[in-house]
Amino acid sequence: MNKISKNIKVIAFDADDTLWVNETYFREAEHEFAKLLAKYETENKIDQELFRTEIKNLKCYGYGVKGFVLSMIECALELSNYQINQKTIEKILNIGKEMLEKPIELIDGIEEVLKELQGKFKLIVATKGDLLDQERKLEKSNLSKYFHHIEVMSDKKEKDYQKLVQHLDILPSELLMIGNSLKSDILPLITIGASAIHIPFHTTWIHEEVSEESSSKSDYQTLLNIKEVLSLL
Amino acid sequence: MNKISKNIKVIAFDADDTLWVNETYFREAEHEFAKLLAKYETENKIDQELFRTEIKNLKCYGYGVKGFVLSMIECALELSNYQINQKTIEKILNIGKEMLEKPIELIDGIEEVLKELQGKFKLIVATKGDLLDQERKLEKSNLSKYFHHIEVMSDKKEKDYQKLVQHLDILPSELLMIGNSLKSDILPLITIGASAIHIPFHTTWIHEEVSEESSSKSDYQTLLNIKEVLSLL
Repeated sequence: MNKISKNIKVIAFDADDTLWVNETYFREAEHEFAKLLAKYETENKIDQELFRTEIKNLKCYGYGVKGFVLSMIECALELSNYQINQKTIEKILNIGKEMLEKPIELIDGIEEVLKELQGKFKLIVATKGDLLDQERKLEKSNLSKYFHHIEVMSDKKEKDYQKLVQHLDILPSELLMIGNSLKSDILPLITIGASAIHIPFHTTWIHEEVSEESSSKSDYQTLLNIKEVLSLL
Repeated sequence: MNKISKNIKVIAFDADDTLWVNETYFREAEHEFAKLLAKYETENKIDQELFRTEIKNLKCYGYGVKGFVLSMIECALELSNYQINQKTIEKILNIGKEMLEKPIELIDGIEEVLKELQGKFKLIVATKGDLLDQERKLEKSNLSKYFHHIEVMSDKKEKDYQKLVQHLDILPSELLMIGNSLKSDILPLITIGASAIHIPFHTTWIHEEVSEESSSKSDYQTLLNIKEVLSLL
């Protein structure tokens, strides 16, 4: 059964892990960070403490690389009992700079899909994270020509999507969101009466995970490859 | 002479130092930072080095508090020749967190002006900086009810305003920008054929300063108080 509204005017694409690879780089950065702190704790404990610090700071820093780096520094100070070497702090700053300069690796099939949908719908990017970082990635991806504009959102909860719909001057039923995070790209859309297509990525940040229970009630489509979108629209 | 186009549909307000006080807090933070490093250098030298680090990192970090904190840490490591105490680095992190939690101090007269213009024009906020930080300040300011939406821009150059106009689906001549920075809020608007009103704030970040020469050619209005806007529209 096709669960997508017949009145779609705007298709919003999540960016990280929907248009291009991202989460993989955060996993690599966390691994680097754990190696730098290896003399103080196990990798497992370091991972846990970093995650705890990130979540504690989420309200203050929001999503994205810069807040992630500030949380790594805070976590390094605490885990080392303020013994962490100053040169190691510089290395943490450099992990962040490298993340911000990473080349773009597109998700397989994405350009073919955008080419096909362009002109038939207003296409936008709807993403969390650092504004500059996301704009830069869109530029580097060579995909910006397909999109009307990019919406960088401070969060992806129901109220944020309600604001987005208002900003676009459309009805919720005229919006289709495509993304990899059930929690951020799919469930809030279903709740506000929009359509959503879920295309999982192999790696999900633990903060984005939702229980089977809260997701099974909802009415959305899951696809294995972005190219299958074309057969639904 | 009234230099404002007769066809204005959208009025965009800069946020920092136009809707509310901001630059003052950066000056205070820089002063705190210099006190923390007082045993290594003079305040004047510390100011200069911090500014140099910020400008070097601007392409990577963009505008806003989080990038400012990362630049303070980098600068502290270098200025102290990696001798800076770990507790001092924690204090720098805390300067940033305090900035992000500052209460909002509105610019005199702003609410009266927004109340009057609301309904007659589409009002938006067009600002640089951290997305989450700017959204949070708008929320705390109680001014969000006057605005259709907030545009957080990664930069405020001509091409950024061209994107904004395209995104708003209007002509440049239908846009009026109001702001305190000649470089960011006024001159690029005049160049793309939009209107602009300049309302100086008593403090300007040196990076936002422009020479008399480059500004005198342009065609914009300068007011001393936001309330004077009402007599022009």
